[in-house]
Amino acid sequence: MDLASLGEKKLIERISFQVEEFQKKDTRIITSIGDDTAVITDESKKAILLTTDAMVDSVHFVLDAIDPEDLGYKSIAINVSDIAAMAGSPEFAVITLGLCNKIDVQFIDSLYDGMLEAGKEFGVSLVGGDMCMSPTMFINVTMTGESKLDRLCLRKDATNGDVIMVSGALGAAAAGLEVNRHNLRISPDTKEYVLKRHNRPRPRVLEAKIAADSGANAMQDISDGLATDLNHILKASECGATIFEQQIPIDRGVEEVARHIGKTALDLALYGGEDYELVFTIPRGKAEKIDQMNNSKEAAPMTKIGEITDSKSGIYIVDAKGMVHELVKQGYEHFK
Amino acid sequence: MDLASLGEKKLIERISFQVEEFQKKDTRIITSIGDDTAVITDESKKAILLTTDAMVDSVHFVLDAIDPEDLGYKSIAINVSDIAAMAGSPEFAVITLGLCNKIDVQFIDSLYDGMLEAGKEFGVSLVGGDMCMSPTMFINVTMTGESKLDRLCLRKDATNGDVIMVSGALGAAAAGLEVNRHNLRISPDTKEYVLKRHNRPRPRVLEAKIAADSGANAMQDISDGLATDLNHILKASECGATIFEQQIPIDRGVEEVARHIGKTALDLALYGGEDYELVFTIPRGKAEKIDQMNNSKEAAPMTKIGEITDSKSGIYIVDAKGMVHELVKQGYEHFK
Repeated sequence: MDLASLGEKKLIERISFQVEEFQKKDTRIITSIGDDTAVITDESKKAILLTTDAMVDSVHFVLDAIDPEDLGYKSIAINVSDIAAMAGSPEFAVITLGLCNKIDVQFIDSLYDGMLEAGKEFGVSLVGGDMCMSPTMFINVTMTGESKLDRLCLRKDATNGDVIMVSGALGAAAAGLEVNRHNLRISPDTKEYVLKRHNRPRPRVLEAKIAADSGANAMQDISDGLATDLNHILKASECGATIFEQQIPIDRGVEEVARHIGKTALDLALYGGEDYELVFTIPRGKAEKIDQMNNSKEAAPMTKIGEITDSKSGIYIVDAKGMVHELVKQGYEHFK
Repeated sequence: MDLASLGEKKLIERISFQVEEFQKKDTRIITSIGDDTAVITDESKKAILLTTDAMVDSVHFVLDAIDPEDLGYKSIAINVSDIAAMAGSPEFAVITLGLCNKIDVQFIDSLYDGMLEAGKEFGVSLVGGDMCMSPTMFINVTMTGESKLDRLCLRKDATNGDVIMVSGALGAAAAGLEVNRHNLRISPDTKEYVLKRHNRPRPRVLEAKIAADSGANAMQDISDGLATDLNHILKASECGATIFEQQIPIDRGVEEVARHIGKTALDLALYGGEDYELVFTIPRGKAEKIDQMNNSKEAAPMTKIGEITDSKSGIYIVDAKGMVHELVKQGYEHFK
């Protein structure tokens, strides 16, 4: 069977099974395949986080069109986002660059400028890597981080009755991608904003810690779209969700871009990827704490968008008229 | 300037400078760019090792010709070899697969079988990864390991007067590559042996610990050829070396393959890559200890091939007639 018929999710399931089956039981591994990061614990009971994410030419970016500083920045930021989703602090990164001969050295310099800028901003030290020739350019970043075992918010920990919350606002990264793709005629302000959201994601390290310290159960970052990423939590936790259309925070400019491409802002917020906001679940009583903590720090707003149910059948959405629909899954999936 | 004009080494130098310049000083980092692995220390004074290595279609292997189990095995083994070169024990790995649609799922299953086989053999747990589409297939493995701070053998630690030693025997991996490339008519025994050395390298974890515990100063694994890799030590340690042609251990079958391609066995041993043996330097008095320790364990033999000098000008080789030549550098370099 070829990968196009199987798709990314089934492939990951298949491999997880294979790995778990053969892997010698290692009690230091708290979680491995199937969460934002691997979590390992050592004698000191710290949680050590390990995550890796690649960006590939013609798949995640277009070499001839991308600003190399943005590319470098983003390659670090998306890994920080995975560490953040474990309420962790990023620490070290190693970088693999697959480079074709035609690439200019100036491009690499700017790429590293962007990586170092992100490294400084998020406290990550670049400690090594590998560089090799490749017909297709790619960057692979592997990042370590640390967290506390009692602070981890694994995907499998959502509980019936939990409130579902998201950080920041959604849809602008997907809007930025559309602006890039179709060269849309939109206001300069919107253009600048959505492109920035697409090119320079802001991983929510602080917000994740606030959520975890307030008592969040399950958490993950939104890289493939709210619908897909919330579904990861539901699947791992074996529960369902009801969310409310009118409560989903739509980012600036998303409405305007959506109009130009014949979609709704909600489409981009639900199914567009790369916002790198957080989605998490938290017991109702503890959700109030978040508002208090948030006000006292410079964190992005966190919004209640629905609740975890025992429906075991995906996500239901309540529209503006109070009608309930089952959400069709259509977030990004590789190979399909 | 394009990469073909600059070459891999100059590019790494350029980036090291950039990273060190801008990197905030992090006292936990013992060594970063420019050694086999990054070395980080924590409060417990353990040395935490982090390394990453990619294999790319048409550069490191040929997708249509490779046995996927071998590819998986090798992708893990070459990272273990980097950990070994720090006298470390490998611990965890995360794997990125860049896959094109046409790849068959059976291929991926076999790939993981090979990775898991190597994982079991060397005690590495596969704890996560990333899978994405890529026009060019690639595997990137990042591995963690641990060692002791007082056991590390950094490239910069070679000292004038040290004996230079290598583990095992050299040239067979390069011979295997030639057999693959040219479909040479050689004896079946030789073919099987050199292909195995090329496809299933044996990282020298035990031998590295013996060397380190015996008092080795500098060490690294031989991935780009003895000439190139010994030069890395010389450059980092600001010293020179004299080696003796007749003392270089030539692996089985190398002579036969070399004859078929109009080269000498010494060419393959010096300039062929991917043997994944160790080259290390050790004070003369301590070198004797190695023979004793080696005999008592099932380790590969370790052979004295020369000594570190203060010549500061690369490698001199003494041939069978006692004539001294300066070694021409011609190990593998990406982009050139």
